[in-house]
Amino acid sequence: MNIRRITSARNEKVKRWRKLGTRKGRDEYGSLLIEGEHLLEEVVKAEWKIRAVLVADEQTKALKLLEGLEGIPIYSLQRSTFSQLVDTQSPQGIAAEVAIPSSQPYRSPERARVLLLDAIQDPGNLGAILRTAEAAGVGDIWLGSGTVDPYNPKVVRAAMGSLFRSRLRRADLKGVIPELKRQGFFVVSTGPRAKQAHFHREYPPKTALLLGNEGRGVQPELEKLSDIRVQIPMPGPVESLNVSVTAGIFLYELVRQEWGKV
Amino acid sequence: MNIRRITSARNEKVKRWRKLGTRKGRDEYGSLLIEGEHLLEEVVKAEWKIRAVLVADEQTKALKLLEGLEGIPIYSLQRSTFSQLVDTQSPQGIAAEVAIPSSQPYRSPERARVLLLDAIQDPGNLGAILRTAEAAGVGDIWLGSGTVDPYNPKVVRAAMGSLFRSRLRRADLKGVIPELKRQGFFVVSTGPRAKQAHFHREYPPKTALLLGNEGRGVQPELEKLSDIRVQIPMPGPVESLNVSVTAGIFLYELVRQEWGKV
Repeated sequence: MNIRRITSARNEKVKRWRKLGTRKGRDEYGSLLIEGEHLLEEVVKAEWKIRAVLVADEQTKALKLLEGLEGIPIYSLQRSTFSQLVDTQSPQGIAAEVAIPSSQPYRSPERARVLLLDAIQDPGNLGAILRTAEAAGVGDIWLGSGTVDPYNPKVVRAAMGSLFRSRLRRADLKGVIPELKRQGFFVVSTGPRAKQAHFHREYPPKTALLLGNEGRGVQPELEKLSDIRVQIPMPGPVESLNVSVTAGIFLYELVRQEWGKV
Repeated sequence: MNIRRITSARNEKVKRWRKLGTRKGRDEYGSLLIEGEHLLEEVVKAEWKIRAVLVADEQTKALKLLEGLEGIPIYSLQRSTFSQLVDTQSPQGIAAEVAIPSSQPYRSPERARVLLLDAIQDPGNLGAILRTAEAAGVGDIWLGSGTVDPYNPKVVRAAMGSLFRSRLRRADLKGVIPELKRQGFFVVSTGPRAKQAHFHREYPPKTALLLGNEGRGVQPELEKLSDIRVQIPMPGPVESLNVSVTAGIFLYELVRQEWGKV
């Protein structure tokens, strides 16, 4: 295994990796930086292209993981330099630059469950939504404008590997919703203004769920385009639920309706 | 309104408030520090005792909120000192020291829904669980050992005011579970080792839900004490869900069973 040593924090590659901490840098290079053995394994399994592997110099254990990765350059960095590139408090000493797939295939027609995200801002929420969506068998996920970059390190971490198996597309939801309806999808908007409880109706096999921003909910303009609005009823005196919890509750009502009822 | 001005960051009160950022400090003083107008309103509504109000010196708008709060000392701090005490990036310039209620009343017998949390570590998860639990009408919440301090600022923020209306108790769950069973509760443990899907059974009016640590799940010792184990089934190739999402999915299955079926 050929490991190249980088000794200066001002090395050009280090500058590049540092830029991957921002959305601008990720867009510029078409790469994201992932951290830790677990995510590296997930990336290898998902067959995403790894451009470089970074190890903190005292790190040797994780190198076993790299034995199968022929032809990928490996760089050894000083721990202090490495720590500047990753944002967890206890970095495992291994990271990788991974190419962002240029365009995820559009496979809605034969898929039953679709998510439409209108300006989800919190990276932890988006990550948890990707994880739950995969568990519940969701196909395409459309990211409307104002949604946090899915390659943000906090999203990557919270998604626990689901990111690499998600089919994501950034798009203007005002165009996507009518197109999904033409394809036979039933588009459901969730929010406190709705009158019907989410479990008080049956959903067709092709259902798209529209979830809104943490503060303002779904934009009225998008809400109007949807077929129905439902709400998660709240016996307690709470105004709203966390949006990733809302996604889980709704998606599992779909799973329940499909898998069998009590 | 009598506002006392603090000009030094080494003032004794400032030192005290800084300590409230740690669990040790909160336990020592029996106080927590909350930040922002919204949480201050929630604390007032919940009638928790406010020991002091802190304002950043250029802050005047929020003072309207304080007009009804007679007899509570108000301290004005320099913005730089204030910012050291709160941990959000865009502090609103208002915070308060609030007394932690010494013991929440134990009201399980007449209550139908109870949560048992076995070592939930992430403050964002605990906050989201408190918010969802309140929405779904949960009564008592028992915090097992290893659970993050509920008065941690990140929990307070994620709970969005639900913290002040929750009935929380720290306890050894090994003692709580048999006691709940004696009171007629049906204790349900969730985890991937279970065979039955959570929506494939009916739950009695008095049900207690046991949720486990983010990494290891529910301790086997506690799992054995429960009446049944259920799992959230996952059509997709995911190992587990975020614990706050799990709480939402399960608690809303209880709400659905109570409120009416499709």
